[in-house]
Amino acid sequence: MLKPDTHYQMSAVPDIEMTLTGTAAAGGVPLYGCDCPACLRAVRNPAYRRRATSAKVKTKSETLCIDCGLMNLAEHYPPGSLDAILLTHFHVDHVQGLFELRWGKGQKIPVYCPNDPAGCADLLKHSGILDFRPIQPFEPLLLKSCTVTPLLLMHSRPCHGYLIERRGYRIAYLTDTVGLPDETLLWLTQHTPDMMILDCSHPPSENKPRNHNDLSIATEIHQQLGIKHTILTHISHDMDNWLIAGGQLAEGIELGHDGMTL
Amino acid sequence: MLKPDTHYQMSAVPDIEMTLTGTAAAGGVPLYGCDCPACLRAVRNPAYRRRATSAKVKTKSETLCIDCGLMNLAEHYPPGSLDAILLTHFHVDHVQGLFELRWGKGQKIPVYCPNDPAGCADLLKHSGILDFRPIQPFEPLLLKSCTVTPLLLMHSRPCHGYLIERRGYRIAYLTDTVGLPDETLLWLTQHTPDMMILDCSHPPSENKPRNHNDLSIATEIHQQLGIKHTILTHISHDMDNWLIAGGQLAEGIELGHDGMTL
Repeated sequence: MLKPDTHYQMSAVPDIEMTLTGTAAAGGVPLYGCDCPACLRAVRNPAYRRRATSAKVKTKSETLCIDCGLMNLAEHYPPGSLDAILLTHFHVDHVQGLFELRWGKGQKIPVYCPNDPAGCADLLKHSGILDFRPIQPFEPLLLKSCTVTPLLLMHSRPCHGYLIERRGYRIAYLTDTVGLPDETLLWLTQHTPDMMILDCSHPPSENKPRNHNDLSIATEIHQQLGIKHTILTHISHDMDNWLIAGGQLAEGIELGHDGMTL
Repeated sequence: MLKPDTHYQMSAVPDIEMTLTGTAAAGGVPLYGCDCPACLRAVRNPAYRRRATSAKVKTKSETLCIDCGLMNLAEHYPPGSLDAILLTHFHVDHVQGLFELRWGKGQKIPVYCPNDPAGCADLLKHSGILDFRPIQPFEPLLLKSCTVTPLLLMHSRPCHGYLIERRGYRIAYLTDTVGLPDETLLWLTQHTPDMMILDCSHPPSENKPRNHNDLSIATEIHQQLGIKHTILTHISHDMDNWLIAGGQLAEGIELGHDGMTL
């Protein structure tokens, strides 16, 4: 018979299911009125559409929502099914779905978020059923069956990545960011993720991008941390067009799409 | 043969088509997690759903959009088809669809709005293809084929109703408001609308409501102005429940619903 701790070690398999419910840069794909190949493809075939970057995390014990830019949150999270929300930051494309949800009924929903008192419009002032709980980078949260550690990112306002760990399996979700702060790089070196979801809004560019990774920076982070499997998210039509034109991703890096389950 | 001016008089028929693209109070119907009769009915039958209050105005010459709380604006207004946007005010449920649309391509879209420099989140700062044009109450705009006059409303932030006139036919669109300021009542007495779309968020209540009409106030406005046909909008689940329970509307007053064409 296996000892409990041996059993625990053997259970270090991915029993967290993550679904990328949205993978778009601000504006989505297609952009309104844009006739580039990526946008026309997305108009013709909804499988190529990208909506606001966000993810659903499911374990046997709980359901978490990372970011709330989708407006049909009630379809993704039927009332009573959502244990907590993790907000990366308060830009509109990451919180817009909360403006309706807040006026719902039932138990309060914890919303873990960066400490950013400005919030977005009147969301913090009129929070309804949302229980906003500002948290500090690198201070782990113990949820029902997993540990969630907020990680400092580099963006135009306070922004958290999240490392979700359950039974030794680790997924890092890192958007919106341009590069990674030294503290976060060091922390991730000490807690190497099995899988990483990473901001890659732009194709490789000569100029250093602001606010979001381009593919050069995303690839550098992937290789520097020695991640086996990185999925790119927060994708713009420019990034899609670069791939349509024949651009290649480095080994271990994959393009995310809406509805992708990991 | 008719004289041109006689012909003009005879053409004073409703050649403006207005569609109520949304008729909900903030939060929509159904509210997330609510099990009241109105919300359960809307869950079971999408015809009873209410989304963010908004309207489309079409004439032979132009298409206008009043308020942008819907997120699928591209479906309602294919690129190139939208001549102008009329914003009543900058609360999120009236502008949220613009946060994606702004990053589109093509000609700038004029957005007539109250003079409210705070706007909503970063919408005025990063306006993309939107050309915000603050306008003053009671100063008429001459558009392609109709005259639009902004009317002062009473709400928790600067808010305009709009009177749209074409060939002598007048539609007043008055939301969000609680009662009407004297200047607006006087102006409407001098320019009686043929049809009025009016905020009625709440059923009749003993206490004077804040920010939105209840049915008592809406009925008083309808009767005071001698309007033949008033359609109620910005409807909450409480208002729907009051009607489900047998509440009756006064003569000439009708309940709006999403998709209703006038």
